[in-house]
Amino acid sequence: MPSGSPSTPHRPPTGRVTLSIDAMGGDGGPSAVVAGMSKSADKNPDIAFILHGREAELAPLIARAKLDDRVELRDASDVVTMEEKPSHVVRHGKSTSMWSAIEAVRNGEAEVAVSCGNTGALMAISMIRLRKLDGVSRPAIACLWPSRNPAGFNVMLDVGADIRADPDELLQFSLMGASYARNGLDLERPRIGLLNVGTEEHKGRSELKQAHDLIAAAAKRASFDFVGYVEGGDIPSDRVDVVVTDGFTGNVALKTGEGTASLIRDSLREAFSYSILSRTAALLALTSLKRLQKRIDPRRVNGGVFLGLNGTVVKSHGAADATGISAAIKLAFRLAQSGFNERLAARLADAEVLRSNDDLRGRDPA
Amino acid sequence: MPSGSPSTPHRPPTGRVTLSIDAMGGDGGPSAVVAGMSKSADKNPDIAFILHGREAELAPLIARAKLDDRVELRDASDVVTMEEKPSHVVRHGKSTSMWSAIEAVRNGEAEVAVSCGNTGALMAISMIRLRKLDGVSRPAIACLWPSRNPAGFNVMLDVGADIRADPDELLQFSLMGASYARNGLDLERPRIGLLNVGTEEHKGRSELKQAHDLIAAAAKRASFDFVGYVEGGDIPSDRVDVVVTDGFTGNVALKTGEGTASLIRDSLREAFSYSILSRTAALLALTSLKRLQKRIDPRRVNGGVFLGLNGTVVKSHGAADATGISAAIKLAFRLAQSGFNERLAARLADAEVLRSNDDLRGRDPA
Repeated sequence: MPSGSPSTPHRPPTGRVTLSIDAMGGDGGPSAVVAGMSKSADKNPDIAFILHGREAELAPLIARAKLDDRVELRDASDVVTMEEKPSHVVRHGKSTSMWSAIEAVRNGEAEVAVSCGNTGALMAISMIRLRKLDGVSRPAIACLWPSRNPAGFNVMLDVGADIRADPDELLQFSLMGASYARNGLDLERPRIGLLNVGTEEHKGRSELKQAHDLIAAAAKRASFDFVGYVEGGDIPSDRVDVVVTDGFTGNVALKTGEGTASLIRDSLREAFSYSILSRTAALLALTSLKRLQKRIDPRRVNGGVFLGLNGTVVKSHGAADATGISAAIKLAFRLAQSGFNERLAARLADAEVLRSNDDLRGRDPA
Repeated sequence: MPSGSPSTPHRPPTGRVTLSIDAMGGDGGPSAVVAGMSKSADKNPDIAFILHGREAELAPLIARAKLDDRVELRDASDVVTMEEKPSHVVRHGKSTSMWSAIEAVRNGEAEVAVSCGNTGALMAISMIRLRKLDGVSRPAIACLWPSRNPAGFNVMLDVGADIRADPDELLQFSLMGASYARNGLDLERPRIGLLNVGTEEHKGRSELKQAHDLIAAAAKRASFDFVGYVEGGDIPSDRVDVVVTDGFTGNVALKTGEGTASLIRDSLREAFSYSILSRTAALLALTSLKRLQKRIDPRRVNGGVFLGLNGTVVKSHGAADATGISAAIKLAFRLAQSGFNERLAARLADAEVLRSNDDLRGRDPA
């Protein structure tokens, strides 16, 4: 697939940011999506939406939420289901709400697209309609991860755009992740770590050793710090801001972390409903428990971001409720407002960063 | 490396089980190890120990713990450090406590060895001294994982013996994991799942598709149920008893789960010490919190088991305290008492299981 630039999304001169929202395809259906939009619209007067889906279903929801002046409806008759194969959607999905949502970013009508739908299909449509940025051979999905850092989050990528990544692609992920941490987490000089099974330099797969050297060589020019190898236990730590890995490992780690947190949440609930004493304690501790819940609530970090395309796409969790969708919208707004994608493109177009590594790959550095 | 059988550990006719313990190399030093042994000895009159390390250091600890009649000391002057390369230890480590601990299993003096030391070195020594079981091309490390299952645990392997596994080896892991679940968790017909990035059959790496078909074909004869692909979120679930994966992915998942649990534990502690009200609540909820703590305490599931060798080795966490070491000893005792390794060897020697898959690999099934 060529990595050309069919259209460059522009930032409107006003403070208002338009987001393109896929109303369909999530577990909660259009009503959860509109409820999330409503939450965000209440808090932020600068957001406008283009909403894609079945107009007859959406219009009453928008009217009831009193969002008419913030939302432009765009009718799309079909819905991408969670089971559909990406290749099928690419061939037959032109009339879906997902396709329409991406098209609005491609056309420059919206800054960022948000969808709760089928991840594989969303990535496939984004790839063929938005195309890859110059210098990117494999896009990635980045997620936020609750951590011990002051910001409360780390970034990890790739968490599932693809199932592998070679050393050059892991270097691209480092550049993209650094840009995302700068714009999404306000970190001027993010610390990048490469996920491995040990922090000793002799451990791990040979492609990781190559990637290690490429990333180390690019760090200075690309204005990030490279902390070297990190382990699974460092993902929620304060040792690192951005964890770089291939999409298979990243996806397993992400879902393992979510599964572990969910098991502990349920055990906590169980522990506190065990006896009258513990139920009383839970009442007394309600504020503290809510503070904890907020810290580890996966809905707050809802939103994987597709990086490396001509346009930004936020993938919200399929099971997201209004709170989760509102978090994804907030993230989309922040990235749009910071002009994230233009900055990322500029970083990647700075071919010097990549070229300065050529000698490490044994090529002629000329 | 040949997979012969230099010596077969035997079960003594009495109910007493002798474990071989490496006293050195853990973060807590010999005093933590002896404290753990003491805890286990108090609870279980059937355990005896051979303890390996610097005699001058160990003798007073054993005397103080009043363990003289349960422990045979074996002097070893050297200690394997956490930083040492496995290849170096294999060449120069004959006088270490770790080597001595494995040697006692090789000689049939003890049923199972336990060490808190350097995992890579322990695996390397175990490989060359105990050798691989017939039918095993790659040993694996299996760990227990807190889960929603009635037993409270799932098994995952490989969590770090090696960094890759081909389809045949993933099949071997399934057989070894099933055997471990039968003997370690008392599950007659364990459910095996293959870790992947999606449960749909078209997803994931091609070697996983091959492994999927091999394991499915072996399930009936090997008396386990194959649930197909599972995702990271299923590791702590009740969908599966044994999660099979390569050592790179398994190690990242294990450490990610531990890191997530540790972040939540600290947040919980912080939440409960926030105000006088929440501190009061914590006091009231103490029993419930302890119940929760026990459920998610990594020390309780302390002990990775090396599978696929002529002898069982339990790797305790390097940072394990007395509670953690006692948990590893309990696991070692249970496996020794069930005659686990002989059963595992018998399963793997039942070449029919592997041979029945030959047609799937396109070989002559004869």
